[in-house]
Amino acid sequence: MHRTSSTPPTCSGPVRLGPHARAALRPAVAGIDAGFWHDRREVNAQTSLPQGPGLLESAGNLHNLRLAAGTAEGEFRGSYPFVDTDVYKWLEAASWQLADEAEGDLAAHVDHITGLVAAAQQPDGYLNTWFQLVKGGERYKDLRWGHELYCAGHLIQAAVAHHRSTGRPELLDVARRFADHIDSVFGPPGSGRPIDGIDGHPEVETALVELYRETGERRYLDLAAYFVDRYGHGLLGGEAYCQDRVPVREATNVEGHAVRQLYLLAAVTDLATEAGDGELRATAERLWHAMTATKTHLTGGLGAHHDQEDFGDPYELPNERAYCETCAAIASVQWSWRMVLLTGEACYSDLIERTLYNGFLAGVSLDGERWLYVNPLQVRDGHTDPGGDQSARRTRWFRCACCPPNVMRLLASLPHYLATTDDDGLQIHQYVTGRYSGDGVTVRCATDYPWHGTLAFTVEESPADRPWTLSLRVPRWCQDVRVRCGEEAYDGPVTDGWLRLRRSWAAGDRVVLELTLEPRLTVADPRVDAVRGCVAIERGPLVYCLEQADHPGGGLDDIVVDTTRPLAVKHRPDLLGGVTTVVAAGRRRAAPRPGWWPYTPYTQHTQHTQHTQHSQHTRQAPHTPEQTQEEPVELTAVPYYAWANREDGSMRVWLPTS
Amino acid sequence: MHRTSSTPPTCSGPVRLGPHARAALRPAVAGIDAGFWHDRREVNAQTSLPQGPGLLESAGNLHNLRLAAGTAEGEFRGSYPFVDTDVYKWLEAASWQLADEAEGDLAAHVDHITGLVAAAQQPDGYLNTWFQLVKGGERYKDLRWGHELYCAGHLIQAAVAHHRSTGRPELLDVARRFADHIDSVFGPPGSGRPIDGIDGHPEVETALVELYRETGERRYLDLAAYFVDRYGHGLLGGEAYCQDRVPVREATNVEGHAVRQLYLLAAVTDLATEAGDGELRATAERLWHAMTATKTHLTGGLGAHHDQEDFGDPYELPNERAYCETCAAIASVQWSWRMVLLTGEACYSDLIERTLYNGFLAGVSLDGERWLYVNPLQVRDGHTDPGGDQSARRTRWFRCACCPPNVMRLLASLPHYLATTDDDGLQIHQYVTGRYSGDGVTVRCATDYPWHGTLAFTVEESPADRPWTLSLRVPRWCQDVRVRCGEEAYDGPVTDGWLRLRRSWAAGDRVVLELTLEPRLTVADPRVDAVRGCVAIERGPLVYCLEQADHPGGGLDDIVVDTTRPLAVKHRPDLLGGVTTVVAAGRRRAAPRPGWWPYTPYTQHTQHTQHTQHSQHTRQAPHTPEQTQEEPVELTAVPYYAWANREDGSMRVWLPTS
Repeated sequence: MHRTSSTPPTCSGPVRLGPHARAALRPAVAGIDAGFWHDRREVNAQTSLPQGPGLLESAGNLHNLRLAAGTAEGEFRGSYPFVDTDVYKWLEAASWQLADEAEGDLAAHVDHITGLVAAAQQPDGYLNTWFQLVKGGERYKDLRWGHELYCAGHLIQAAVAHHRSTGRPELLDVARRFADHIDSVFGPPGSGRPIDGIDGHPEVETALVELYRETGERRYLDLAAYFVDRYGHGLLGGEAYCQDRVPVREATNVEGHAVRQLYLLAAVTDLATEAGDGELRATAERLWHAMTATKTHLTGGLGAHHDQEDFGDPYELPNERAYCETCAAIASVQWSWRMVLLTGEACYSDLIERTLYNGFLAGVSLDGERWLYVNPLQVRDGHTDPGGDQSARRTRWFRCACCPPNVMRLLASLPHYLATTDDDGLQIHQYVTGRYSGDGVTVRCATDYPWHGTLAFTVEESPADRPWTLSLRVPRWCQDVRVRCGEEAYDGPVTDGWLRLRRSWAAGDRVVLELTLEPRLTVADPRVDAVRGCVAIERGPLVYCLEQADHPGGGLDDIVVDTTRPLAVKHRPDLLGGVTTVVAAGRRRAAPRPGWWPYTPYTQHTQHTQHTQHSQHTRQAPHTPEQTQEEPVELTAVPYYAWANREDGSMRVWLPTS
Repeated sequence: MHRTSSTPPTCSGPVRLGPHARAALRPAVAGIDAGFWHDRREVNAQTSLPQGPGLLESAGNLHNLRLAAGTAEGEFRGSYPFVDTDVYKWLEAASWQLADEAEGDLAAHVDHITGLVAAAQQPDGYLNTWFQLVKGGERYKDLRWGHELYCAGHLIQAAVAHHRSTGRPELLDVARRFADHIDSVFGPPGSGRPIDGIDGHPEVETALVELYRETGERRYLDLAAYFVDRYGHGLLGGEAYCQDRVPVREATNVEGHAVRQLYLLAAVTDLATEAGDGELRATAERLWHAMTATKTHLTGGLGAHHDQEDFGDPYELPNERAYCETCAAIASVQWSWRMVLLTGEACYSDLIERTLYNGFLAGVSLDGERWLYVNPLQVRDGHTDPGGDQSARRTRWFRCACCPPNVMRLLASLPHYLATTDDDGLQIHQYVTGRYSGDGVTVRCATDYPWHGTLAFTVEESPADRPWTLSLRVPRWCQDVRVRCGEEAYDGPVTDGWLRLRRSWAAGDRVVLELTLEPRLTVADPRVDAVRGCVAIERGPLVYCLEQADHPGGGLDDIVVDTTRPLAVKHRPDLLGGVTTVVAAGRRRAAPRPGWWPYTPYTQHTQHTQHTQHSQHTRQAPHTPEQTQEEPVELTAVPYYAWANREDGSMRVWLPTS
């Protein structure tokens, strides 16, 4: 039933601009034909998405909808007030997928589940099975934890996706009724609305902007603007966790619960775009740059603390306790994409690329059946995993199952995060094999990226009457780029991350961009204490890691990488679905017999002399560790996104150099 | 009303050996007259302990007891089922203090609160205000979280302390009735008792052993043995958090919730001692050494995770997210002291010393009025503290107020953790100014330890008829020790941490021990990733840290210590109640303008060459950080225990060397 479209889908994606938007760029779309992301999307389409309805059934989410509709009997199932969002996110993901496969099993499931959602809605538009069934209909009494507006937000996003993909009104009608209900209840003092309040988990704000974009109904935009500016005034108790410590316009860095912060900032950017609010734009730019410079893991992962799912302090970027929730990586892509449209700057797409290939993609197994909620950068030798949602081992589904359908919706809508247009032409932000289309221009790209750096573009459709600019993003990790236009080498500048080729294009014109993919070693700012004295291996957009499975005969915690020896590249079609590995020279310390205590005198320099000066008086032997034995070992690094797809074992992204 | 006793108290302390115990050493006692610990205990006696009743009143703990007794009306106050233990731990602390001040306000408060506890007890002996008032008397239905036996344990410990200090039966009678009730309810299948179960939080086990020691009632020892061996069989769901993943006899390292593990292991050691169980002894030794070698912070702090208050993996010893709950440090001292008695080995007292002077003492402010629940080894520049119990800022009291009265009870009972006797003489484990007494021997010590390393001992009382051995522990941090006996230098060996002086002592005999207190730099095992490339400053038993308050003009996260320059010592009577500081040479990087991204190419070695080889093709400047500017800065390190007693700011124990 599944077909791969070789023509770009015609519906628009998750972010459409309103008629008054002040954006630098307009979203375009790509049809992904083959290659890396095609394969990941195929697994999503053929395994993850089809398994969704069964998992939602067995976890009780659909049962709860039937209970609310009065068409089933029994107890509410699930532990959280936001279990409905698992359904909504799956519906959104499936709706984007319907652009590729409009009919068949998936469409039937979407119809069926849409019907369950519609039936569960109350006559006045309210919809939340937890509050309808468990809380006896006590609405909006626990905004800090209740997630009622958060759930509404995901419903709205699903409805917009469904409408954009299918043109059908059923789910959009449900969402509008709920949005209208919310708009009748929430508003500032003096507005005549009974509640001046916000949700503990931002999400409805960006959804309401998109509902405005879809319907043209300005009320939804105004409601989103109201919500965004009510955070930070203590309505939720003033905690950073709920984004309530400080008004976002005054914030100097991202803080609190990572996903909440990022969804809020997506809305901030939406509002800056639609309302032309320069202060909100400056806020979004300031916070994005602060986050990227001080609170982002090498993988693009976000969130340093398990406790409170919090961002942590600047430069607090732990490895084994990195939280890096899969949903935070997704939210980061969603926010950065809005920044792309607003500003046109390449840095946002740089972070999107890094996040997609690493911190995001690690969230789903290669077979599409198992998930990671948290994405650590290290698993120690002998790690005893407690299991549960925050496990470092992949899990079939979670008690709090926010991440899996979130992954599905991003993969299904991925063609909409790759390219833009403006009045001057087409900008290609992310490289895939397929066709980029917008505003009467179509450019085909053939590539084996990220394994190879050759990107071969062919103009397939071009307006005959005017020159336009083909803009190709040169990633910041790339320090060596070569370009050929037709048969000629091109020697123009790369400016602010863009290679801009302006000319009168004709169908059949060819451009070849070569991004050199030398493997490289990366170090961190010295304030990132967690990785002092370490390097990471990267190649192109991919962050690499060592896994225990490739290093028998000892653990990974005793390994040192030799930075004086060159890195080698080896493509391994047999390994992890086909990956290019990076091979490095290293040494493994023979694990010394543990002493009584893991701390010893510093003896390299002056201190050593001082201690030994007094040795004639020393009554007990100094407690120095045994002499360390080392043996050479070949290190095989695999892409981080592919980790945890073999037997359980240790893993490291950052490798000590001595 | 408070007096400082210059004669050792005659009651015994928290650990008394039973008549059949197989212990290497017997507990002795010290009267602390002056000096470091005298001052800390004075603050405890004059500020912390007297404030207890008022805080227990305002937090609702005493109100709950009155509610349970039917002598007050209102709602239960507090969020946890174990709030009664705040009362019990204060009662225990106050009872130990009564050894120094038998009459007065404190004694009156003890009498009053003992009366409240007794009145709240139910006729069959059960006592837990949460379950009596909130849970409608539903007993023992939620052993995993209910803490009913945990509360009983703290009641028993308080009662034993009260009985040992005052000889009075009131509280001991309450505790025995509760213990008898528990003994009538809990037992193995086939025992005729209705419940085969254990408490989610171990604690009652070590308390029951002590109740056996106090009363001679063997049933209590048997009940403790039953409980200890029922952990690890899935009765609580099999989680490490509750010590239920693996039977303790099979465990290879400490795991799960740190305080739970440590209280359980105190009981394991008690049972090994009282029952002569060699397997339990081997278990305790194995786990203590594994913990000390792989899961102990430099401060003696224990517990790597905020989440679940968990130990974490071996060598996972973070700095800013070190949990190191104050209660875990206390539990570590309690366990290690039992290991001291069981084995006679000095290593356990080495860890006790380190923990007392650092990870434990940091838990209370210098003025005795504010507390730390968690004890991190780093607070970053610009740290935004969320407040709450797990804050890195000192707090007046906690919602979960386990730590403050726990600190009070250890300080009040400290004289009982310092010395032991055996048939051969007296062993001094910890050095204080005062008199050590046991088995007809009294030795006075005068010292300004830990600021100075001179320990002057005078024999004050000695049996005339036999030689005996004065054993002085030589701490493992000390690599240079000198001894004079009378006027003569002594040149005997230090064996396994002990300097043993055997002779026929007479009153007036003098021994002077000189522990050289050179400040020193310490490094960690390379597997401790968190502190790679760093050193810590120590002097004697004290771990040092840098505080923002002593380093104006910039943050601490840009500081580097120069390990080639000598450390200097400067006593500062004006500072933090009088401390010896360690002054080191350092440099401060002028904070570079942040780049867009905190990761950059590794350029020192081969990689640099590889990149620049291709520079003719490079279209954009490599994103190298700006050249780093450094300025010299004098670093003033203060003892870790004294941190967070001035204005809020950053703090570091581990200092980068480059």
